[in-house]
Amino acid sequence: MTRVGIAAYGITPFTKNDQNIESVLLGSVKNLFDNNAKINRDDVDAVLVSTNDNSKYLAPILSEMTGIQPKIAHSIENLCNSGTNTIVSAYSYIASGLAEMVLISGAERYDSPGQILTWDNSRGEFKHPIFWASIFTKSYKQKFSISDEQLALVSVKNHKQAQKNPNALPMGTCTIQDVVNSKKLTDDLRLLDCSRPCTGSASILLASEKIAKKNIDMPIWITGIGQKTTSAGFTKNDSFSSMESTKLAGQAALKMASYNTKDIDVTEIHDAFSVCEPMALESLGFSDMGKGMRVIKEAHETNNFKINPRGGLIGSGHPLGATGIAQTIEITQQLQSKAGSRQVDDAKVGLIHNMSAAATSSTVLVLEK
Amino acid sequence: MTRVGIAAYGITPFTKNDQNIESVLLGSVKNLFDNNAKINRDDVDAVLVSTNDNSKYLAPILSEMTGIQPKIAHSIENLCNSGTNTIVSAYSYIASGLAEMVLISGAERYDSPGQILTWDNSRGEFKHPIFWASIFTKSYKQKFSISDEQLALVSVKNHKQAQKNPNALPMGTCTIQDVVNSKKLTDDLRLLDCSRPCTGSASILLASEKIAKKNIDMPIWITGIGQKTTSAGFTKNDSFSSMESTKLAGQAALKMASYNTKDIDVTEIHDAFSVCEPMALESLGFSDMGKGMRVIKEAHETNNFKINPRGGLIGSGHPLGATGIAQTIEITQQLQSKAGSRQVDDAKVGLIHNMSAAATSSTVLVLEK
Repeated sequence: MTRVGIAAYGITPFTKNDQNIESVLLGSVKNLFDNNAKINRDDVDAVLVSTNDNSKYLAPILSEMTGIQPKIAHSIENLCNSGTNTIVSAYSYIASGLAEMVLISGAERYDSPGQILTWDNSRGEFKHPIFWASIFTKSYKQKFSISDEQLALVSVKNHKQAQKNPNALPMGTCTIQDVVNSKKLTDDLRLLDCSRPCTGSASILLASEKIAKKNIDMPIWITGIGQKTTSAGFTKNDSFSSMESTKLAGQAALKMASYNTKDIDVTEIHDAFSVCEPMALESLGFSDMGKGMRVIKEAHETNNFKINPRGGLIGSGHPLGATGIAQTIEITQQLQSKAGSRQVDDAKVGLIHNMSAAATSSTVLVLEK
Repeated sequence: MTRVGIAAYGITPFTKNDQNIESVLLGSVKNLFDNNAKINRDDVDAVLVSTNDNSKYLAPILSEMTGIQPKIAHSIENLCNSGTNTIVSAYSYIASGLAEMVLISGAERYDSPGQILTWDNSRGEFKHPIFWASIFTKSYKQKFSISDEQLALVSVKNHKQAQKNPNALPMGTCTIQDVVNSKKLTDDLRLLDCSRPCTGSASILLASEKIAKKNIDMPIWITGIGQKTTSAGFTKNDSFSSMESTKLAGQAALKMASYNTKDIDVTEIHDAFSVCEPMALESLGFSDMGKGMRVIKEAHETNNFKINPRGGLIGSGHPLGATGIAQTIEITQQLQSKAGSRQVDDAKVGLIHNMSAAATSSTVLVLEK
């Protein structure tokens, strides 16, 4: 079977702008083609849009705006991991032989309807993600004796790292005290523990090995894929202090790529809220359970950007349908040694973790040179 | 590469019911599993939802309701051909080796937001499909000297055939005069020339050859796939009396299956409006340009159900995200000789045509025993 590579990418700064979704999508696609003049739009077999926006027919609309007449065109939605679901779908179109080159574009507006899961009205106000995040935070802190101050380091580190990311939503740095003193949203959650909704777009072009090797200077290969959905409602989770879908997706992705966690040089972790970063690192096997903050603290103190180099969701903003694609672009840049002042030394293998709705669904990808 | 087969299907009657989308989806999935007790839900690797509904995270929600914990789960939208886009995506997941068994469920409510394309507000009221349908009808009638009465036969035939479809939206039969005397929507379009929005659901299970041959009595194989998007806005069409995307998708599907139009025994044609049936038959190569009504007339007069045996969209209703899947179920039943009083004699090879937005996008599938 053909290998599938990342042949090009485009991204635009995350903002709070009130633009229509078509313009947001177009921004990163234009950036992609502007920076990759060798790519012929006539060779694009499929255009897949990743978004939670309610607008319809966005893949044909983006195709028309971009001058592409693809075979395959449709939108994909799965809340916050729409982006990596779209990447895996594109992978399968290429690996199955139905396409040689697939354009993936993710975009969201700051007011995306995907920010609230309205299903199961019996939960009343608990439809908003801050409620599961609060329950996770309380559970994690109690089970592993972690303080608010310890957990706040996730936000401090990721805001620091985002300063090196030219596309991050501008937010500045913060201290531990800033985080714990920021607006109290629930008993266990402060404003600075949360990723911010924003307007943003990110696009990548996937290609078969044949096409990638012919046209692309430095393709990055997708060698591991793992996905798992355990439920839709977070109250079905077995635990509020670990992530079962993340664990299973991580195991599958590493197995497919024939790697171990110790082989991973750089990671993008879905830190929708501070507590998600240590929980995901633990469920992925990067540390023992309850010890994730030690790994994070060490990275922060040594100024090693290996965990969420672009600042994660907390540091750079969370445009839902674009997030998994922006994560994938970051790992691609790291493996190409093109991450500028965010560069992790000698990065050869990277991992992306992207999840939805209290980790009821996770995607893990392994990328390598 | 593995062949991909249709291993099971489920469908429920199309209605005007005001049910929530989750319940609509669940209906046909329950029907599928009730009728196929041998299938183990633990073997389902992916759950894909086809809909234009604005609800989010429907694939994980459907999975949780159905007791499935899939690897892959997401929704797909591309207006009226969401259904066949989802089938092709599922095909690629299996053909690429990422999945062995994929559940596809399409559903829509009668008030779906996919019935109007709001993009390009410069068109004013022309956002509703009746306007492109009216322009197509005027253009087709003028170019090929076809009368309103001649074209009305499409609706007469499809309402007649729908009487044999237990899942069709109940609408009764009609005469040529009933059609031309029905409510005038535009100068060139009458109410009975239009398919009706409705609430409906249809599900199929695709499986790899290995799984299908082990578990399934009579799998039907997907041997031809063709897709094309030429634009998003219908004013970009080269012609208003033929369908370029349908022509290209049809050629690709027949080429992949190594068949000719004369090998096709039964077809599902996307008759969103009366004029679409002859136009699509012509663009697919089943007749010369402008002669599609002759083929339709002959089939009607000989009571041969080979074109839209279940009554098409006009006869059975058009629940957008479910339509392409319901079409695929019809062809599957025909090839399995399980179509009851709709059965076309000796049907061995069938073709499905499903399109969106004035044929700016088309999917064509070839199925065989």
